[in-house]
Amino acid sequence: MRILGIDPGVAIVGYGVIEYERNIFKVVDYGKITTPAHIPLPKRLKMVYDSATALIGTFKPDVVAIEELFFNTNVKTAIAVGHARGVLVLAAENAGIPIAEYTPLQIKQAVAGYGRADKNQVQQMVKMFLKLNEIPKPDDTADALAVAICHAHSASLSAKLGLR
Amino acid sequence: MRILGIDPGVAIVGYGVIEYERNIFKVVDYGKITTPAHIPLPKRLKMVYDSATALIGTFKPDVVAIEELFFNTNVKTAIAVGHARGVLVLAAENAGIPIAEYTPLQIKQAVAGYGRADKNQVQQMVKMFLKLNEIPKPDDTADALAVAICHAHSASLSAKLGLR
Repeated sequence: MRILGIDPGVAIVGYGVIEYERNIFKVVDYGKITTPAHIPLPKRLKMVYDSATALIGTFKPDVVAIEELFFNTNVKTAIAVGHARGVLVLAAENAGIPIAEYTPLQIKQAVAGYGRADKNQVQQMVKMFLKLNEIPKPDDTADALAVAICHAHSASLSAKLGLR
Repeated sequence: MRILGIDPGVAIVGYGVIEYERNIFKVVDYGKITTPAHIPLPKRLKMVYDSATALIGTFKPDVVAIEELFFNTNVKTAIAVGHARGVLVLAAENAGIPIAEYTPLQIKQAVAGYGRADKNQVQQMVKMFLKLNEIPKPDDTADALAVAICHAHSASLSAKLGLR
């Protein structure tokens, strides 16, 4: 199963492509989509949408796993990231790829084993699972790989329990 | 100048198409895009995007005027509407149509003359400006016509001041 993990944002979208078969992880590619701050939001959203569409076309994932937004403070940021997440979800939907969504809590539990794990613990586990030499930078990219790993675990568990 | 006004949302997107030339308003069409609540968000976003793209293709507006989101309470709603607004802005951008954004305050000021106008006052002014027999329903549609009128006033003022 090939999974494209996405950490949504307007300025930086993290992405990570992994293969997962029989409990073995293989990293295919990871990186970030960036949009310059001086460009108007509509053009930045188009850049995000077009880049995500290109990634899906290049890597042909079986599923797109994307982090759910969770904000308890800044509504302005929530709205902006909501815009970006909207066009990212649309890119997957328009490509006919199933979309799986996970909360930050689910991701931490799946990757680090417990929901209160801190960012560094999650990143160390990402590095370990994918046998990387170092933690991927920026954080958005590491987060995208984490949501991909989360989906692999979740899909694997569902298969074992006969839920799929 | 032909203006497509949009009031963004996931369940209901209001729209209104008006012509504005030499201080004369003409209403072309208005209505709503709706998406059923039982459908997954990605498919609802695709419905919103496809419907907006179809509206733009049918009415060929010179500009899309869209309300800015303003929330001071419910972050969850803000995120959901942010998704929808993201794909609406993308639909205009992908069609190459300029996008104008107005805050609720700007819209009230432009349509009703002052920023503290209530919903009914704004709707009565929409009805009057467009010489309608009744206030368009639902509120989302009336709001979409209001943002279109707001853009007409704003563009007209900018032209008079030599700003365009």
